Amino acid sequence: MPELRKDPLVGRWVIFSPERGKRPTDFVSPEEAPSKGNNCPFCQGRENETPLEVYSVRKEGTKPNTPGWSVRVVPNKFPALAPEGVFQEHKEGIYTRSTGVGAHEVIIETPEHNLHLEDQSVEEIAKVLETYQQRMKELLNNSKNEYVLIFKNVGKEAGASLEHPHSQLIATPVLPKRVAEKENGYAAYYKETSTCIFCDMMKQELQEKNRIVYENESFLAFCPYASKFPFQICLLPKNHEANMMNISTQEVKLFADCVKVTLSKLVQALNKPQYNVVLTVGPRKKDFHWHLEILPRVTRIAGFEWGSDFFINPVMPEAAAKDLRQASL
Amino acid sequence: MPELRKDPLVGRWVIFSPERGKRPTDFVSPEEAPSKGNNCPFCQGRENETPLEVYSVRKEGTKPNTPGWSVRVVPNKFPALAPEGVFQEHKEGIYTRSTGVGAHEVIIETPEHNLHLEDQSVEEIAKVLETYQQRMKELLNNSKNEYVLIFKNVGKEAGASLEHPHSQLIATPVLPKRVAEKENGYAAYYKETSTCIFCDMMKQELQEKNRIVYENESFLAFCPYASKFPFQICLLPKNHEANMMNISTQEVKLFADCVKVTLSKLVQALNKPQYNVVLTVGPRKKDFHWHLEILPRVTRIAGFEWGSDFFINPVMPEAAAKDLRQASL
Repeated sequence: MPELRKDPLVGRWVIFSPERGKRPTDFVSPEEAPSKGNNCPFCQGRENETPLEVYSVRKEGTKPNTPGWSVRVVPNKFPALAPEGVFQEHKEGIYTRSTGVGAHEVIIETPEHNLHLEDQSVEEIAKVLETYQQRMKELLNNSKNEYVLIFKNVGKEAGASLEHPHSQLIATPVLPKRVAEKENGYAAYYKETSTCIFCDMMKQELQEKNRIVYENESFLAFCPYASKFPFQICLLPKNHEANMMNISTQEVKLFADCVKVTLSKLVQALNKPQYNVVLTVGPRKKDFHWHLEILPRVTRIAGFEWGSDFFINPVMPEAAAKDLRQASL
Repeated sequence: MPELRKDPLVGRWVIFSPERGKRPTDFVSPEEAPSKGNNCPFCQGRENETPLEVYSVRKEGTKPNTPGWSVRVVPNKFPALAPEGVFQEHKEGIYTRSTGVGAHEVIIETPEHNLHLEDQSVEEIAKVLETYQQRMKELLNNSKNEYVLIFKNVGKEAGASLEHPHSQLIATPVLPKRVAEKENGYAAYYKETSTCIFCDMMKQELQEKNRIVYENESFLAFCPYASKFPFQICLLPKNHEANMMNISTQEVKLFADCVKVTLSKLVQALNKPQYNVVLTVGPRKKDFHWHLEILPRVTRIAGFEWGSDFFINPVMPEAAAKDLRQASL
């Protein structure tokens, strides 16, 4: 019999139907040849093929937009939003529009075309995550940007158009609907209980243990109780903090360790699946508990999901977590 | 410069970035060979390969689960929700679950494997739409079902696992989040203006004309001002009515005409794209204005969309509507 589970934060129901004939191993991806990376504008030595860099981690004495970098941030060549202009709503009858103000940047995680994020060392991954912090701080210093969303698309099905390992960020002039929804759920729970819903979730997960994928001193990785997607994983900091940009260098290193182990397990368990990563931080001046979500794209989103915001997940999170825990590195 | 547009009903912002280098013709699908339909359980003569039918439109004198039908409704073989049991929430610490009560049915639109909905006659399409009405009435007579969502997936990318033309319905024991959101937007607008937002939208669309795809006596097909997807189309009844199940036979025929013309234009303009169709009706006992959405799946949903519920649409609805208007039949 299928089971319904409700997301405690936003109230979304998820239908778990393992009866639909799928076992976790049915989601393993087919083998794929590694790419050669000819003509890749993100590779070292091709710095002139991207817009000018806005930030980089590079060897002392090397010049911007030349080799010598280990992490490099450039504006997206086809930006969804651009820094020029101001956000101002214009009415057109019952409709509302504005110019597309914001920023859209690419965080190139390594000069090497085939070096996946999880295959870098913890120290190297920490440099990428510190870059997230730097860019977020800089962009939020500009009052035109209301929010900065950092995300990562791996694989064509997950929306990646270039293979070279990279993350992206989009700064938006309004608070994104989904973030507002999470913040509202957070605030409603706090009002009722005077505690943080994520801190409470962590307590329960550490007690029940059956959805845990990995943990270290400062981070817990687990498959959420009402996961929308098979093998969905949430990385939650043990210390209550609204925004990832405020955590210490030491915490960033522990976050990097958790990212490395969790992604490696996912890649191992599902044989290099396509996936999205989304970082959710608190809106400006609001209390929140930041977290990172890994969303494997192994099922299709269809009419039912678009029409209802119900999701159908054929893998119980407890089964997914067990597979991920057991994946050897 | 990109443009932001806000959905007037649910407040979702959409980024329109035609600068990203795409023209409408870039979304035309590659040629595909028609399928042979060997071993298709939805074809005439294979009635014993599906669960027993719950409804059919068939020639007088023919027996259920034998040939002679033109529309046939069967329970889904791998149902996301099933009729057994009752909906009752159980708490597990901070989490909530329930058994998966409801219904999941397949509406087989024709006995012929390669006869697409839009290629049937208006009278035949009307039979399919009347079947929607019959199933909705029957399932809503059961107080266990809070809502009935009817949808259609065309193409693998859009979530279809079988090619034979069919729609599906899922009856849910709780009001789906997205429907509740639409109803809330509807009620908020009504509270402010004492008018229906969809009626007002229709007035504006008929005045501005540049987003209209097709219209007949009783229906308007247009590309919504803040479309999430390229070539998204909304079919709106001119008569204010909460639920499609209540419209007359004559209105169903005009709806069938609008569905036929609109889908034919879409199939022609984009060369058989993959798409989803979603019917949204009002929740039980609530005022609303029902409508049908056609959602072509020609772009990928990535981390940004999952994290923000912002959407990036590379085609302005005015350009999409122009292409669709001009598509010859």
